Amino acid sequence: MASTCIVGSMKRPIVPRITVITLGVEDLERAVAFYRDGLGWPTQGIIGSEFPDGAVAFFSLAGGLQLALWPRASLAKDAGVRPGHPNPAELSLGYNVLESSAVDEIFAIAVAAGAAPTKSPGPTFWGGYAAYFQDPDGHLWEIVFNPDLLPAA
Amino acid sequence: MASTCIVGSMKRPIVPRITVITLGVEDLERAVAFYRDGLGWPTQGIIGSEFPDGAVAFFSLAGGLQLALWPRASLAKDAGVRPGHPNPAELSLGYNVLESSAVDEIFAIAVAAGAAPTKSPGPTFWGGYAAYFQDPDGHLWEIVFNPDLLPAA
Repeated sequence: MASTCIVGSMKRPIVPRITVITLGVEDLERAVAFYRDGLGWPTQGIIGSEFPDGAVAFFSLAGGLQLALWPRASLAKDAGVRPGHPNPAELSLGYNVLESSAVDEIFAIAVAAGAAPTKSPGPTFWGGYAAYFQDPDGHLWEIVFNPDLLPAA
Repeated sequence: MASTCIVGSMKRPIVPRITVITLGVEDLERAVAFYRDGLGWPTQGIIGSEFPDGAVAFFSLAGGLQLALWPRASLAKDAGVRPGHPNPAELSLGYNVLESSAVDEIFAIAVAAGAAPTKSPGPTFWGGYAAYFQDPDGHLWEIVFNPDLLPAA
């Protein structure tokens, strides 16, 4: 006679993943212009304006990840939190590249597009080569060459 | 005779991608415990402690994306910015699921692991089903069922 197992109380593991990164912004049109026109990233532009606090823009990134730009006030309301003052130390988005010269190149394009440079390209303490800038809403991006973490494309 | 093109002044497009999402945290061990023990996500734990401001933890997510946890003070110093007060409206990380019941399930596991619920599971204004919580450092996560944006795994 075959034995049976009770598995009803077993939790399924939570697959480690992020599907959408939403950045809170002050001026949605300005933010869209930076990523669309400055970096050249494709987007349908601002959608959802027919809903209160619905105006948002999505950018499709490599690997199926989505970047969303949404006013901080809308995000706070939807999430049920009180917005504070902008804080650049909340996060950094890492953009890994295949060679150190690409750090210089992308940093220059971003700054030309209106990004605020906060750290010019140079060697890192862990042996890589990187630079940081802030987007128009203060969100940090690190452009980084790490021989141990090369992007797939 | 073949014609030639001068392409030296053409900019290469910036491939839209994010390879690493770094979250600023107040207490690195507490943050690692939430993701490792509470959500069950694999990590090597805290590495880099031999460098000043180098202590960091990485989690490998689906699709090759990395989630990093790094003290806000270390991030601010490395990036060359002044840290402000924590602000939950800076970002939200979206965790899309395959069915609405998974929203309830993952929300419950996260809250049991110490997350602060800010919006209980329920229908969204755009026709989906979602919930929000904050991790121990106030970073928002939205667990969301969107029939138009299903995760690959």
